[in-house]
Amino acid sequence: MFSAEQLARGYRLACQAYPLSDVKVEVPPESLATPQRLSIEGQEIAVEIDPVVTSYEVHLPPPNLEDLRSDATRLQQALSELGVDGVRLPLTVLHQISERLRALDWRAQAVVREGEVVAILPLESRLLGLAVDIGTTKLAAYLLNLTDGETLAKAGEMNPQISYGEDVISRIAYCDQHPDGRQILRNRVVETLNRMIEGLCAEAGEIPEHVVEAVIVGNTAMHHLFAGLPVHQLGMAPYVPAVGEALDIPAHELGLHLAPGAYVHLPPNIAGYVGADHVAMAVATEVWQADKTMVALDIGTNTEITLAVEGRLLTCSCASGPAFEGAHIRDGMRAAPGAIERVQISRDEVRIFTIGNQPPVGICGSGILDAVAEMLNVGLIDNRGVFTGQHPKVAQQNGQSAFVLTPSEGTGQGKEVIVNRRDIHEIQLAKSAIRSGIEVLLEHAGITPDQVEGFIVAGAFGTYLNLESAIRIGMFLDLPRERFRQVGNAAGTGARQMLVSGKRRDVARDLVRRVEYIELTTHRDFQEVFMKALYF
Amino acid sequence: MFSAEQLARGYRLACQAYPLSDVKVEVPPESLATPQRLSIEGQEIAVEIDPVVTSYEVHLPPPNLEDLRSDATRLQQALSELGVDGVRLPLTVLHQISERLRALDWRAQAVVREGEVVAILPLESRLLGLAVDIGTTKLAAYLLNLTDGETLAKAGEMNPQISYGEDVISRIAYCDQHPDGRQILRNRVVETLNRMIEGLCAEAGEIPEHVVEAVIVGNTAMHHLFAGLPVHQLGMAPYVPAVGEALDIPAHELGLHLAPGAYVHLPPNIAGYVGADHVAMAVATEVWQADKTMVALDIGTNTEITLAVEGRLLTCSCASGPAFEGAHIRDGMRAAPGAIERVQISRDEVRIFTIGNQPPVGICGSGILDAVAEMLNVGLIDNRGVFTGQHPKVAQQNGQSAFVLTPSEGTGQGKEVIVNRRDIHEIQLAKSAIRSGIEVLLEHAGITPDQVEGFIVAGAFGTYLNLESAIRIGMFLDLPRERFRQVGNAAGTGARQMLVSGKRRDVARDLVRRVEYIELTTHRDFQEVFMKALYF
Repeated sequence: MFSAEQLARGYRLACQAYPLSDVKVEVPPESLATPQRLSIEGQEIAVEIDPVVTSYEVHLPPPNLEDLRSDATRLQQALSELGVDGVRLPLTVLHQISERLRALDWRAQAVVREGEVVAILPLESRLLGLAVDIGTTKLAAYLLNLTDGETLAKAGEMNPQISYGEDVISRIAYCDQHPDGRQILRNRVVETLNRMIEGLCAEAGEIPEHVVEAVIVGNTAMHHLFAGLPVHQLGMAPYVPAVGEALDIPAHELGLHLAPGAYVHLPPNIAGYVGADHVAMAVATEVWQADKTMVALDIGTNTEITLAVEGRLLTCSCASGPAFEGAHIRDGMRAAPGAIERVQISRDEVRIFTIGNQPPVGICGSGILDAVAEMLNVGLIDNRGVFTGQHPKVAQQNGQSAFVLTPSEGTGQGKEVIVNRRDIHEIQLAKSAIRSGIEVLLEHAGITPDQVEGFIVAGAFGTYLNLESAIRIGMFLDLPRERFRQVGNAAGTGARQMLVSGKRRDVARDLVRRVEYIELTTHRDFQEVFMKALYF
Repeated sequence: MFSAEQLARGYRLACQAYPLSDVKVEVPPESLATPQRLSIEGQEIAVEIDPVVTSYEVHLPPPNLEDLRSDATRLQQALSELGVDGVRLPLTVLHQISERLRALDWRAQAVVREGEVVAILPLESRLLGLAVDIGTTKLAAYLLNLTDGETLAKAGEMNPQISYGEDVISRIAYCDQHPDGRQILRNRVVETLNRMIEGLCAEAGEIPEHVVEAVIVGNTAMHHLFAGLPVHQLGMAPYVPAVGEALDIPAHELGLHLAPGAYVHLPPNIAGYVGADHVAMAVATEVWQADKTMVALDIGTNTEITLAVEGRLLTCSCASGPAFEGAHIRDGMRAAPGAIERVQISRDEVRIFTIGNQPPVGICGSGILDAVAEMLNVGLIDNRGVFTGQHPKVAQQNGQSAFVLTPSEGTGQGKEVIVNRRDIHEIQLAKSAIRSGIEVLLEHAGITPDQVEGFIVAGAFGTYLNLESAIRIGMFLDLPRERFRQVGNAAGTGARQMLVSGKRRDVARDLVRRVEYIELTTHRDFQEVFMKALYF
């Protein structure tokens, strides 16, 4: 286990590697990162760099009274001489073309994307790309050099839409209740992204006008809200997206300040509750071409799970709820300084570890997961989650048993931090949803749990969590430990891969076409499996 | 000749046929319209109706838990069943798709344009189109039924950019001097067009959301200012356009309120001072396929002239100045009520006719043209434009001779209306520019004036003017009169033709590729020809 010091150092290191704004963002301590997590990062290098944009150096003869070609035609014909025929020039590029060509003295890089000029840049400019993962809670953005795939800068911020609803459903409700709700939520996230882009570019000594391509992933609701798409139908059965396919949308149409003709690629969604972020994760972790039987999942309010087996991809989404984000837990909180994130319980004592080594102020997802697993280990609660054992730290509160992780003395907020029966029940619901999803996929594929050869856990919480605890409470399959990989923000990695590689976008499209989506709400066995999985 | 009553009636009729807002717009009195003018209108009927949009009736199965396709995929697959594969859905259409399909109970018309859905309309909706001619002075807009080519409503308004400069050059200067000048000029014309669209739709009992396609023509500067393109380089030698080719731009990107995915087609420009309006005129008048030798011109501050001869198309633009719009003329004014628009001079008297039969307040282009021609006829001025003859109406003003068209008594503004030597000189400059342009084209083609078999005069002023006067002062060639056609707003007609016919757009593209543009400013003979043409 880790000392409080180790954890604190890990957190600081993480903060350095992953610059944060003033908001609190869940960042995995480096010391908790498994080698596998790095290997996902490592795979970036293995990805072939084949960006969808190409730069051509053009030297144009200036116009004179014997050569009256328009600026656009002049550029098009120069490109044609380089073998690039019939390129289109979008209006946003035409808006600048005349000043730009003259300012650059008729020598420039023309950046071409699928037959369209997206930017006219100085000869010495680097080609930059932007990758973003729009999480319900957090935005992660990366600035890349498109030519070599290098990540030049990273940034994380809270998703500002949180002020309009903590989760997807409440944001959809906000849009339903406010005529301009969609516009407001869209604007908020776009403003934040533009600020992040400014910051990333400043950090890399660049300007947003040189960012010629972007890839943005998110769950289906975040995808729709970002693009201003209708979300009402996402909030009610049968929960269909407005659009599933990949989209390429001019950045200016989305309100993002990049190169004038830059496009934003939005990879495809699988279903109303399995979005492009899961697709990106599947791309990055390569489950799409797994020759082994693999489970890959990303735990959140909705947990998306994909099972790869014998060339098939089975996917489902389960409503695991926000308990692991600290919601619906009496003393729950997000992973932020002061959150109890590790718990060890022995016969007579409790050890807690907090993020940043701060006085405890509450408990975050990995902490509550540990607490429940440890209470099971020492026999304090039974397989129904009921307090049955004895422990000096068990107290009675309002006639109910509760486990006191830390008394009010020494806490940051002056109140004790406890885990009660209700909290345990929330964890039961969450873990049962996830386990049931896995079980249904296995059943669909006709295989048993022990046939699963790889188990990939993505996302911030998935990286934080103590694997033993997750297995102990029955959330994950009890497989040999070497089959597990905790891979961090694989969605962000997938977005970066798709940014620098057109082939990876094809992989995503192909993957979505191949996926067999299993709708759990109508699945005949789901209720039964779920009820069974409630037990520890 | 026409009586004042006839003219007044003509003006009123014109106002009925061509609804005007509260601004003064030059409208040809119907009684002055030649049959040829109508035949240009008549050619619309001869144009094959092959719009670039096609409507498909779709009946979609609503989604349910067994059929979770996204709304976009649902629509795409329904179109695919009708043989329209792989259509794209632009973001603006996706923004509405979910509400729209549900509101229409999953039965709709999908309007498709070059593989893209531009609108989802109720089954019973008509497909509408918009044609606009953006003149430097006037905007003319037409609402058409795309299915049968019928013009449902027309409107004319002043170009609001006039407040920023009467002519093209002063508007370019405004943009050069104001950082947001281009944006301001763009916004003003777009706002006015949106208001006109509202009005046209209201008149036809329609809504702008059902306008699924538009064609907009204008001279190169108006084209650039409307699309927000750079104009600085248009204002200085060698006067190259930012873009010459035809453009198809989403209406929303231009700020026009039409169907969500509607496109605006901007036909190609030939040169910095020969724009898409001249191309539209050439399309409408069919000089592009003339088997006769023909001259076609549109008189304005710049007069564009095309000579069609033996399959060749030679085009030039001459700086004829604003004299025929009433500028630089002592008592000059635009064609508006009270403008003297016809003048007859005999040995001892003068007869004047005003627009709207109002008390005279000034003289417009056709009036000053008549006045000069009549002064020549009665020998009052010589071929240099110098007053040499005697007439009771000649007075001395500031030591110079001037012809008094009407004394101050009886005028609308309480001041006499005169024509002085300086005014005559302005007309000499204008007519010489136009005549020299014609001569240079003829010389280029190696033909003599009498070989010209057709002479087409387009535009509002071209329709107003007295042909005999124009020939008398040497502005036009002295050909048998039956070879002349005054065709009214042929640019507007050409725009309407291109609106309802994709083939006509191809004609325009082909025509622009074929045109041999002659730059007069560098033409070796131009100065000489011009000096000679100054004489009457």
